[in-house]
Amino acid sequence: MNTISSIGFDADDTLWESEVFFSQVEKKFTQLIKSYGVEAEIGKELYETEKRNLSKLGYGVKSFTLSMIESAHHLTQGNIGSGDTEKIIQWGKELLHHPVNLLPGVVDVLSYLQSHFAIYVITKGDAFHQQQKFLDSGLATYVTDIEILLEKDSNTYRATLTKMGVAPEEFLMVGNSVRSDILPVIEIGSQAVHIPHETTWQYETEHTGRNDENNYPILESIRELPDFLSSIDS
Amino acid sequence: MNTISSIGFDADDTLWESEVFFSQVEKKFTQLIKSYGVEAEIGKELYETEKRNLSKLGYGVKSFTLSMIESAHHLTQGNIGSGDTEKIIQWGKELLHHPVNLLPGVVDVLSYLQSHFAIYVITKGDAFHQQQKFLDSGLATYVTDIEILLEKDSNTYRATLTKMGVAPEEFLMVGNSVRSDILPVIEIGSQAVHIPHETTWQYETEHTGRNDENNYPILESIRELPDFLSSIDS
Repeated sequence: MNTISSIGFDADDTLWESEVFFSQVEKKFTQLIKSYGVEAEIGKELYETEKRNLSKLGYGVKSFTLSMIESAHHLTQGNIGSGDTEKIIQWGKELLHHPVNLLPGVVDVLSYLQSHFAIYVITKGDAFHQQQKFLDSGLATYVTDIEILLEKDSNTYRATLTKMGVAPEEFLMVGNSVRSDILPVIEIGSQAVHIPHETTWQYETEHTGRNDENNYPILESIRELPDFLSSIDS
Repeated sequence: MNTISSIGFDADDTLWESEVFFSQVEKKFTQLIKSYGVEAEIGKELYETEKRNLSKLGYGVKSFTLSMIESAHHLTQGNIGSGDTEKIIQWGKELLHHPVNLLPGVVDVLSYLQSHFAIYVITKGDAFHQQQKFLDSGLATYVTDIEILLEKDSNTYRATLTKMGVAPEEFLMVGNSVRSDILPVIEIGSQAVHIPHETTWQYETEHTGRNDENNYPILESIRELPDFLSSIDS
């Protein structure tokens, strides 16, 4: 096994809370739409709209907000009031400025790891929002660079490592999404560690059709990462 | 005068058409709102909303779309129909996929310059959209890298040059916006060439309060750039 020189960390729900804020807004959205007497599966329709819009709008809060507005229109059969649409936009703006709550152990672990590895934050989503959260997080002091990708697939990981000047066999990725942080990274010959988070966006958990059991290590908390890294150091 | 080693090109309305597509949508938006009997200055209200939202939403089509929806709500005093809001979102999606029409001379000039300089595209706005347009443009073959900034001010230019490993005195920026492409670049001790475009977003032309007359060269077309560069080469 090669020695790891560089570690990439996913951001949302790996370094700081994110999905929980989306869930709160989704709850308010569901209540709003229900107040129109809608009996359809609101969460399901919203999610389908989000997925349909990914290729057109990309990831992130602004796309999510536009998807809520579209779903509201369709779910209420064109009856959503203009004031309620405006309310949805305000929720989107609040989401863009949610507090950056670091997950337990993040500062300790990054502070320890930075003297042993080059640390990268590798995330996707709205660049405006991700950059802002990164600045607010105070983690810049531990991190060599942040890369905000439009998609996290094997091609973008390969291109990012090339840009960073890191060989795939020297790279290890840490994240909460099997779809985005684990499988594409293993595919390019790097290593990956899965740290599940209790709230993870449904899209990130959809990766069926591939038998990936036992192909990657799973840790309960980022606090276990230093010991894990010592254990694989050849 | 130092010799220029690297040239940065703004993208929207410097390499390809952009504002003209926004103007077309704004025209449709104005007609839509007028159909509600609104007599207010629609373009002015939309622009004020866009400006107000910049710090909250950032630049780009998705922000513009959300600003249109908000303006529609306020201008119609809450009477905009849900179907019309949905129409505005569709315009936004169309804007995100407008054709990439290169400006005259761009391919010839970049193709010529690439053997003499490192060429960078330095733009701002929605990363998802800018990256897509860059890929569609076919210009990647001439360009060392594309940098999509959240803001184009002297701090972000300075940080970008550091990242690129280019000294300010070796750098020259080319763009259509005095506010974003010229003044902050001159401020950090680099050079800048202004190539005005007939349609430029109002925000980019607002840079009053500073006397910048004759502080930078103005070219009529990118075609004049090679001769200009020869003329300043010491």
